[in-house]
Amino acid sequence: MLVVMSHTATQADVERVCSTITAMGYTPAPMPGAQRTAVGLVGNDGRVDDSLIAELPGVSRVIHVSNPYKQVSREWRPENTIVTIAPGVSFGGTDIPVIAGPCSVESEKQIVASAHAAKAAGATALRGGAFKPRSSPYSFQGMGKKGLELLALAKRETGLPIVTEAMDDSGAYMVAEYADCIQLGARNMQNYSLLKTVGKIGKPVLLKRGMAATIQDLLLSAEYILAEGNPHVILCERGLRSFDSTSRNLFDLTAIPVVHQLSHLPIVADPSHGTGRRDKVMPMARAAVAAGCDGLIIEVHPQPDQAKSDGAQSLNPDQFAECMQQLRRVADAVDRSIAGVA
Amino acid sequence: MLVVMSHTATQADVERVCSTITAMGYTPAPMPGAQRTAVGLVGNDGRVDDSLIAELPGVSRVIHVSNPYKQVSREWRPENTIVTIAPGVSFGGTDIPVIAGPCSVESEKQIVASAHAAKAAGATALRGGAFKPRSSPYSFQGMGKKGLELLALAKRETGLPIVTEAMDDSGAYMVAEYADCIQLGARNMQNYSLLKTVGKIGKPVLLKRGMAATIQDLLLSAEYILAEGNPHVILCERGLRSFDSTSRNLFDLTAIPVVHQLSHLPIVADPSHGTGRRDKVMPMARAAVAAGCDGLIIEVHPQPDQAKSDGAQSLNPDQFAECMQQLRRVADAVDRSIAGVA
Amino acid sequence: MLVVMSHTATQADVERVCSTITAMGYTPAPMPGAQRTAVGLVGNDGRVDDSLIAELPGVSRVIHVSNPYKQVSREWRPENTIVTIAPGVSFGGTDIPVIAGPCSVESEKQIVASAHAAKAAGATALRGGAFKPRSSPYSFQGMGKKGLELLALAKRETGLPIVTEAMDDSGAYMVAEYADCIQLGARNMQNYSLLKTVGKIGKPVLLKRGMAATIQDLLLSAEYILAEGNPHVILCERGLRSFDSTSRNLFDLTAIPVVHQLSHLPIVADPSHGTGRRDKVMPMARAAVAAGCDGLIIEVHPQPDQAKSDGAQSLNPDQFAECMQQLRRVADAVDRSIAGVA
Amino acid sequence: MLVVMSHTATQADVERVCSTITAMGYTPAPMPGAQRTAVGLVGNDGRVDDSLIAELPGVSRVIHVSNPYKQVSREWRPENTIVTIAPGVSFGGTDIPVIAGPCSVESEKQIVASAHAAKAAGATALRGGAFKPRSSPYSFQGMGKKGLELLALAKRETGLPIVTEAMDDSGAYMVAEYADCIQLGARNMQNYSLLKTVGKIGKPVLLKRGMAATIQDLLLSAEYILAEGNPHVILCERGLRSFDSTSRNLFDLTAIPVVHQLSHLPIVADPSHGTGRRDKVMPMARAAVAAGCDGLIIEVHPQPDQAKSDGAQSLNPDQFAECMQQLRRVADAVDRSIAGVA
Repeated sequence: MLVVMSHTATQADVERVCSTITAMGYTPAPMPGAQRTAVGLVGNDGRVDDSLIAELPGVSRVIHVSNPYKQVSREWRPENTIVTIAPGVSFGGTDIPVIAGPCSVESEKQIVASAHAAKAAGATALRGGAFKPRSSPYSFQGMGKKGLELLALAKRETGLPIVTEAMDDSGAYMVAEYADCIQLGARNMQNYSLLKTVGKIGKPVLLKRGMAATIQDLLLSAEYILAEGNPHVILCERGLRSFDSTSRNLFDLTAIPVVHQLSHLPIVADPSHGTGRRDKVMPMARAAVAAGCDGLIIEVHPQPDQAKSDGAQSLNPDQFAECMQQLRRVADAVDRSIAGVA
Repeated sequence: MLVVMSHTATQADVERVCSTITAMGYTPAPMPGAQRTAVGLVGNDGRVDDSLIAELPGVSRVIHVSNPYKQVSREWRPENTIVTIAPGVSFGGTDIPVIAGPCSVESEKQIVASAHAAKAAGATALRGGAFKPRSSPYSFQGMGKKGLELLALAKRETGLPIVTEAMDDSGAYMVAEYADCIQLGARNMQNYSLLKTVGKIGKPVLLKRGMAATIQDLLLSAEYILAEGNPHVILCERGLRSFDSTSRNLFDLTAIPVVHQLSHLPIVADPSHGTGRRDKVMPMARAAVAAGCDGLIIEVHPQPDQAKSDGAQSLNPDQFAECMQQLRRVADAVDRSIAGVA
Repeated sequence: MLVVMSHTATQADVERVCSTITAMGYTPAPMPGAQRTAVGLVGNDGRVDDSLIAELPGVSRVIHVSNPYKQVSREWRPENTIVTIAPGVSFGGTDIPVIAGPCSVESEKQIVASAHAAKAAGATALRGGAFKPRSSPYSFQGMGKKGLELLALAKRETGLPIVTEAMDDSGAYMVAEYADCIQLGARNMQNYSLLKTVGKIGKPVLLKRGMAATIQDLLLSAEYILAEGNPHVILCERGLRSFDSTSRNLFDLTAIPVVHQLSHLPIVADPSHGTGRRDKVMPMARAAVAAGCDGLIIEVHPQPDQAKSDGAQSLNPDQFAECMQQLRRVADAVDRSIAGVA
Repeated sequence: MLVVMSHTATQADVERVCSTITAMGYTPAPMPGAQRTAVGLVGNDGRVDDSLIAELPGVSRVIHVSNPYKQVSREWRPENTIVTIAPGVSFGGTDIPVIAGPCSVESEKQIVASAHAAKAAGATALRGGAFKPRSSPYSFQGMGKKGLELLALAKRETGLPIVTEAMDDSGAYMVAEYADCIQLGARNMQNYSLLKTVGKIGKPVLLKRGMAATIQDLLLSAEYILAEGNPHVILCERGLRSFDSTSRNLFDLTAIPVVHQLSHLPIVADPSHGTGRRDKVMPMARAAVAAGCDGLIIEVHPQPDQAKSDGAQSLNPDQFAECMQQLRRVADAVDRSIAGVA
């Protein structure tokens, strides 16, 4: 940490900063300059709270030199983490698994048809929400436990492992009984109780980036899970809040190489939420693969125009099959491969 | 709801939209224009899911005419809601109560001293976190139940009612035993399980706006609480995520008159989080009063430079007393008054 | 245009809206609903100023049904516009030309070396700034006319057409003498004098999207150029202002399919400014091709660590050659091709 | 400047950074730490381009310790700059002048009526656009030179000095013949040619903050004007681009105390553009005064519902008179005063 003194700071100001650093248990290292003095803080592990120092007299700015996260950092673990959610379905290696399925589980017929369509086109995992976070209390909130049972049925029919969302602590334990990977949604990225709970449960977690979360925020939320002893975390870019309503969200694909630089965790992309419009899903799924994503999660519905939620961004089975063909070509072009056969 | 057809839409496209609207249980009202046709959807209550229609062939845009919220809307209840958290401490009328206290409860001595300082300067409620949502798992997470007991002690000593945060369902029930008003933080604004829980508990709720939440999002989250039968909701503006690091957040004071136009619920302002810098708290607290806020929540700590969290944005008791004097003058100038005596 | 009346609007309010619409020269079409009335405005061309109506008593909202742009819209011209800046160098067809070169022209040696490196790797146009918009008045501002002459020299040596920026009206005429395509930077996207000037000059224009511009803003700025009689406009996505400092800008690749849907104009991508970091340029250039871009503009410098500007985001010649190889493979995978030979 | 090396940087990496700093003409100061080394750059004036260093092997981050602006900084000039645009009309002292008038000059009758209404209510300067930057080429673009002549007429009638916008270099010279203060709009905040031109002209300048400009960007643009020898710069906060459409812009009033801390230049607030809605102008004008603004610029039109631009955010004369009464009371409450008599 570096404490930058104001141009007009007195010697007494500098000494007060040094003594405060000493009182915090660290070593101060004053560095006089031509125009101003800076004081380094030596001996910390990158997680010092700066608020004691930031407002001392004569202090102009406090600069954090190290990142506040640790276990998720590539500096501390250079090789990629591979997260395996079922035999043969791994994120973080050369293969790019595709998770497909409807926004919500709506009926046995719908989820089983979705699972067969997903598998037929080459998806290797099934998504589908039983618990749905919705902006409005009057929107469809999901089928709950019944939805989880239908997902289990679809898994028995197709062999596809299940990725589904948990919205609270008690729900997380219930979801964990059925799911192969627990999804945490963007609105819950900083629900720290829930992060700790899925950390304790220990199953693989798909952690979506919040609508206004920095990459550092995302990595710190993942750190919560790892700090509880669960290293099986898959990050997910799904679009940010933006000022332009031509797409539902602002899909930040640069997050993919940024995460790869800063962390060893795999990152998947969600072009369905990232764009919110069916005809944008295919080009942006291709772009995500070209940018280096470690997986994709795509909404597929047997009849999108009758979906109870997110129909506008869901592909129908034919569109999804076409999408997978395109993704295979792009994956080949970047020396990756789309997992699964079709 | 209005469905705008493309300039090139065919008659068959228009008919498909009409039949879909009919299938949804509403009445279509086609309006041919010089350049394009629009189709109105009649008979709805403002909460129609547009995704079935948005992607039909020939549809250019879907426009929502009504707002998706209802019980929180001023259209449906013209007079202000007054939320009373303790005898004489009401939000939504002419008086402007000030909630003051430290970010976190740290010790008996600290919280009691904070409460006395708050009361002495004229605050009429005490804030202080026992459960702290922190970006990093390595930051101080709060004293938990012990913190709630210390808040109760401070209340006995000073008579000030308590406002404190709950972070999850089980915590909410525990907080409700001690608090006069349950605070939900910005990161939990769309934690729908928690919203429903505090709706069921029925105690007053201080609901903070999320970092990238629109006013509509905020009102919809409040609607979750009212929909469970709890009308005692106080909204809170605390700053948005921004691209400029000169302040911690972007404090959106225009939210105050906007909320007053759209909703009957009271709205308070949090200049401590809104700015993140001690020397900005006073001017922006004054500005909030001038903009018409129904209350303020301000961080006060007996020794900010020794605070375990948010020290940089906390006022010391002398600064808070000065702040209250300034706020009284501004409140007078807008025909309001700062509740409490000093 | 649709005028949504408040739930509490009186019949007199509705009539006032109708008479105002009539006074503006249009036809009002009132549509009473179960909860509220809406009034359509018929006979307009999509460019009505709503401010006369928005604040009339009883008006809740004004909704624009048509887009305010016209000549740039795909609704009015379904087929792609092909912009040719030199024989064989066209944007908007199957080929994807790559414009490469340094941020600034610095010397004869530097620009000629850049041009040779660009051409050798397969670029088909040369970029290089002679006039540089810089945030600070103390940063290098470009070589001016001398820079243009050096660009002309590099063109004679390599045959590559020139793309270079103009910053003001008089500069635009000077740039037009040397350049094959005039670039307008993000900070000048809404410099309407300059837009009109390049519209009158008639040469191809590369128009960069502003840092906080919606796609509609970008299309309206292009409309300024077309309205002066110059249809040769190439749009450019170069990243938006964001709250996350891990990349220089937030590269909005979804803009590519969005523009393709709304407009017939070609759109190129600038991964150098879009990311600001050399090691992110290659993955995001690949992603742009996969998303369907019609061209790329990439910063290449013979010695990036000695560049006078933007060195951190420039590729060296070897990196650029590698980048072009990767782009060729991705282009093949989406049935496009990178123009030029290597 | 501080260069933070990666945890894994080698001694050779550190030495390469040191030699690059030396080659740039500065002195390197390596600081080995427990986990990583940082290298200080000594002897600079705060305006070093970091791009040569940021991408060297082993470099993790480059941190700028000093601000890149200088003449506008309060560190270098502690006392407030007072900008006087006409005898008795000064910004930066205790008085708060109010600039009022219509968005656009539309006719002799309209601008003279506006000027009389403005003066009657206590405004001490007249605004009104003769050159209008409009998003659409089909919107009213202003009366041009004729508009300037009408402003001069209104000045003769009322004695109010004139504030009006220039959009390009040649326009700036023409505006300077008529105006007492040249306004530069948000879209031109980084139009560097224009900044230099008004710097050379030497008349007072009202510089509006761009829609996505940081405070540092704004100060750097002001630095362009001061660097040409013109110290008479008034900054203006007018709202930022936001994701919430309930107001036209996001009015960032915290910019006022932030600018006061960083710079000696005065800052005025524009609640008309800051909110975009007439009924929000009054509360936010009050809030701006409470926050400490040095002036206000408010749109007033004799008949807002017939305005050619921005009618929805303009006050009528009665509303403006009421607004001024309210502002006087708030100004008194913060020991300032609204200039002018009423």
